[in-house]
Amino acid sequence: MPLIVTGSIGIDHIEAPTGEAKESLGGSSVYFSAAASFFAPVRLVGAVGDDFPNRFIETIESFKGVDTAGLEIRTGSKTFRWHGKYHENMNHRDTLETQLNVLGEALPPIPEAYRDSKYVFLANTHPAGQLALLKEFPDHTLVVADTMDLWIETERPILLDLLKQIDGLVLNDSEATMLTEESNIVNAADAILKLGPKFVVIKKGEHGALLRHADGHAVLPAYPAANVVDPTGAGDSFAGGMMGSLAASGELSLPSLTKAMACGTVVASYLIEAFSLTKLQEIDRATIDARLNEYRAMMTF
Amino acid sequence: MPLIVTGSIGIDHIEAPTGEAKESLGGSSVYFSAAASFFAPVRLVGAVGDDFPNRFIETIESFKGVDTAGLEIRTGSKTFRWHGKYHENMNHRDTLETQLNVLGEALPPIPEAYRDSKYVFLANTHPAGQLALLKEFPDHTLVVADTMDLWIETERPILLDLLKQIDGLVLNDSEATMLTEESNIVNAADAILKLGPKFVVIKKGEHGALLRHADGHAVLPAYPAANVVDPTGAGDSFAGGMMGSLAASGELSLPSLTKAMACGTVVASYLIEAFSLTKLQEIDRATIDARLNEYRAMMTF
Repeated sequence: MPLIVTGSIGIDHIEAPTGEAKESLGGSSVYFSAAASFFAPVRLVGAVGDDFPNRFIETIESFKGVDTAGLEIRTGSKTFRWHGKYHENMNHRDTLETQLNVLGEALPPIPEAYRDSKYVFLANTHPAGQLALLKEFPDHTLVVADTMDLWIETERPILLDLLKQIDGLVLNDSEATMLTEESNIVNAADAILKLGPKFVVIKKGEHGALLRHADGHAVLPAYPAANVVDPTGAGDSFAGGMMGSLAASGELSLPSLTKAMACGTVVASYLIEAFSLTKLQEIDRATIDARLNEYRAMMTF
Repeated sequence: MPLIVTGSIGIDHIEAPTGEAKESLGGSSVYFSAAASFFAPVRLVGAVGDDFPNRFIETIESFKGVDTAGLEIRTGSKTFRWHGKYHENMNHRDTLETQLNVLGEALPPIPEAYRDSKYVFLANTHPAGQLALLKEFPDHTLVVADTMDLWIETERPILLDLLKQIDGLVLNDSEATMLTEESNIVNAADAILKLGPKFVVIKKGEHGALLRHADGHAVLPAYPAANVVDPTGAGDSFAGGMMGSLAASGELSLPSLTKAMACGTVVASYLIEAFSLTKLQEIDRATIDARLNEYRAMMTF
């Protein structure tokens, strides 16, 4: 079933205790697409400037399932850039610089051939933009959105409108607390279901994720990662693996969503072992399935 | 197989956003014993003063598997007291007052009949005391110790000596980092195995626990608890459920330890639903098994 993602494509500069990567391929939709492609074909919609290196397009296209017909190279514009620095424990980071560039201009056009997309992931952006995008895919089977603290604080009414129109919401624990004013995340998840979505996934970074679905809960720890080189894109690749698995199964049941979260967890666990997409380029579906089995065994009693 | 625990028995004063409990039964070995008793008989060694209310002894003895022959009521002494206050999110607390009282005096004698104990839990106390206690149980099958930041900082040489003589260590994530100087807890767990223990359980509170065993890892999330009234004793009841399950199974394999961690997780999830031991008094093994099944389903994919 066709899966589509819209979001940022960027050139990152990352500093971490494990090293430094300058002029590195990044962006939420890039991490998402690469991760999803192990499970289902994925359509990538996003704009870059004419400074975007050709080798980055080759990297994106090295992921066989990624369709780049929706990747616009805008002449005269510059690519989104992000510069961040991780703290010693790798769980916190500071943003040193953000250059919105093409992300601050008009949205890229959506190819006609993409309008039949059934599985839609609205990566984090202004909720008005997410609502506008939603209208582009009238035949959708499933729409899942990501959001962030900025929109919860500044655009709550329009975000609440969006929540009534989507099937699933993905956000992190502090955002869930901010949105619902519930400090207990289990209660926060319950409160989010009352705002519209049929399910919500609360990401806790190195501590795993919680799913609240009409039929119950799923809780999964993160994969115990000893070799964390660069956590950038972990949340996006988690969402990509999850949506790819859902698009492949075509099922929105609690067991299917639990499996999808496990797929997201495992892809993210590989992603963070190297800078940018390096590690994901080295693995295949069999590698992922092997770690899925290992991960399952770690929770089996 | 007989399980023994030594540790504090206390009178707590707890303030939380959910209410206040004055003159409330607490102490690490009390929480441990009550939790373990659902799985295996447990011998409790500890001292209280003559201010210890009779009703507290009745509460302890209401847990059928708890043997209180090792509970000394010391005339002229006062019971250990702890006064703590939880923050709004229930995950952090401040200690407002501690009165060591009888805990600062001589250790209670260990009944002769307890010397054949096979499963030994050395609750958190000075590691010299833990080493002395260890010698009292020459026929042990399994010794597991808890520790804390204070001993890691101030008594490292003797703690390292203890680690060479025990089978398992239980501690929380910040303590694991402090002990090993590894900020990644997976690496910290590996480093702890090199110090002697055959396994280590790193507790992450509301985020679950990680086990490192010679044969591999187990990772379990916490049970998603919506109704958190009082987290006091959660770590001790986790350890109690875990050791009770191990004593019942008699197996120290990775699958047996994973099951034991799940038992600890579920007993702790009940404990925190009310002040002191109130909730544990209301449940039985069948209640625990039902939640174990529910918890397992939340991770099944």
